[in-house]
Amino acid sequence: MNTQSYKKIEDYMLLCMRDSAHDKEHVYRVLYNALEIAAEETAVDYDVLIAACLLHDVGRQAQLENSSLCHAQVGSEMAENFLNNNGYDEAFVSKVKHCIATHRFRKQLQPESLEARILFDADKLDVTGALGIARSLMYKGNTAEPIYTRNANGDISDGDGDVESSFFREYKFKLEKLYDRFYTEKGAALARERGRIAAAFYESLYREVSLPDQMGRTRLQALLKND
Amino acid sequence: MNTQSYKKIEDYMLLCMRDSAHDKEHVYRVLYNALEIAAEETAVDYDVLIAACLLHDVGRQAQLENSSLCHAQVGSEMAENFLNNNGYDEAFVSKVKHCIATHRFRKQLQPESLEARILFDADKLDVTGALGIARSLMYKGNTAEPIYTRNANGDISDGDGDVESSFFREYKFKLEKLYDRFYTEKGAALARERGRIAAAFYESLYREVSLPDQMGRTRLQALLKND
Repeated sequence: MNTQSYKKIEDYMLLCMRDSAHDKEHVYRVLYNALEIAAEETAVDYDVLIAACLLHDVGRQAQLENSSLCHAQVGSEMAENFLNNNGYDEAFVSKVKHCIATHRFRKQLQPESLEARILFDADKLDVTGALGIARSLMYKGNTAEPIYTRNANGDISDGDGDVESSFFREYKFKLEKLYDRFYTEKGAALARERGRIAAAFYESLYREVSLPDQMGRTRLQALLKND
Repeated sequence: MNTQSYKKIEDYMLLCMRDSAHDKEHVYRVLYNALEIAAEETAVDYDVLIAACLLHDVGRQAQLENSSLCHAQVGSEMAENFLNNNGYDEAFVSKVKHCIATHRFRKQLQPESLEARILFDADKLDVTGALGIARSLMYKGNTAEPIYTRNANGDISDGDGDVESSFFREYKFKLEKLYDRFYTEKGAALARERGRIAAAFYESLYREVSLPDQMGRTRLQALLKND
C-alpha cells in the first residue's frame, strides 16, 4: 500500500469514528497490534490487513444509533462500498470485507483467512490488561452504569452471576474469560502478559469495596440507637 | 443518633444524589471509611460525623448544573437548611456545616474539627487505590475525555505537564499526588496500602499503550511505499 492510499482510507475512518470507547486511538492500537502479530506470521497480505484494521469499526456509529444492528456486519458493507468507490479490485474488497465481518465473536461467522484472524486477535488484545479495564470503566461511565451492585442480602456482589449491569459483572462475564480465545500464538502470548494486571486490579477493587462495606455496616448498626 | 433520624437524613441524601461517579454508593463508602478512621480516634462526635458524611455531597447536582458553584459550599448550606427544618439545634447544625464546607481541598477553608478532618480523609480515600482509578476512568468516560493525548512529536504523552484533559493527565496532576494529603494517621495508612495498585495500574496502562504505539508507527512506515 502506498502512503496516499493509506491516507485516503485513514481519512474515511476518521470521518466515521465518533464514540469515545471506540475512537480513532482504538483503531491505531488495533492496527499496531496487528502489525506486531503479523511479524510472527508468514505470507501476510499487508494491504488487506492494514485496510481491514483501519476500517474494522466504521460501523460503530450505526450500531450506536440502532442497537439491533451489528457493527461488524454494517461496517463490512460500508468498507465494501468505500473500497469499490475508490477503485479497489473485487478480490481485495472481498478479503477486507471478510476480515471486518468476522472481527466480532459470533459462532456462525468466524475469521477464516490469516488476516481476519490477526484482526480478530488485535481487536481482542485491546480489551485485555489495564487497557481493557480502562476502556470498560470508561464505557460504564458513559452509559452511567455502576462499579458494582448489591446481592439480595445487601452485600456488594463480586459480579459473578449478576443480572444487573455493572463493571464487576462485565469483568466476570467478559473480561476474565477473554484470555483463551485467541487465534494466533503471538496474540495469545501478548494477552497472557497483560492478564495479570487486569486480575490484580479487579481483585484490589473488590477488596477495597467489599470488606470496608461489611465492617462499616456492622459499625453503623452498633452506633445507631433503636429508640 | 437513632435509626429514625439516620433514615430521615439518608432519605434526603438519596433524593439529592443523581450523577454517577458521586452516587449514593460513594456516600456509603465515605461513611464507612469515616467510621473506620474514627475507631482509631478519641472523643469523636458520631452524630455530627454520620450526618456530615451522609450529607457531604448533596450539593453535587447544583455544581453539575452550574460549574461556577462549589458543591462543598452549596452542600453545606443545603445541609444547614435541611437540619434546621428538622429541628436540630444550632450548635449541631454549625458543626455539620463546617465539615461539609471544608471537605473539598481549598487553601482558605480547611477542616478544623476532628469530625471535619475525618470526613476530609474518608472522602479522599475514595479517590485512592483501584477505586480512585475506577472512579476517574468512569468520570472520563462520562465526559467523553480520552485515556491519553499525544505530544507535538506524535508520541503518546504520559500525562505529565499535559494541557489537554485525559486520564493520564488526571493521574499525574491529581491521583498520584493524593497520598500525602491526609489529616489522620489511619487515613494516611489506609491510603498508602491502596496506593500500590493505583501506581501499578497506571504504569501497566502506559506501558501497554506507549511501546506498541512507537513500534507500530515504525513498522507502518516501513510497509508504506512512497510512490
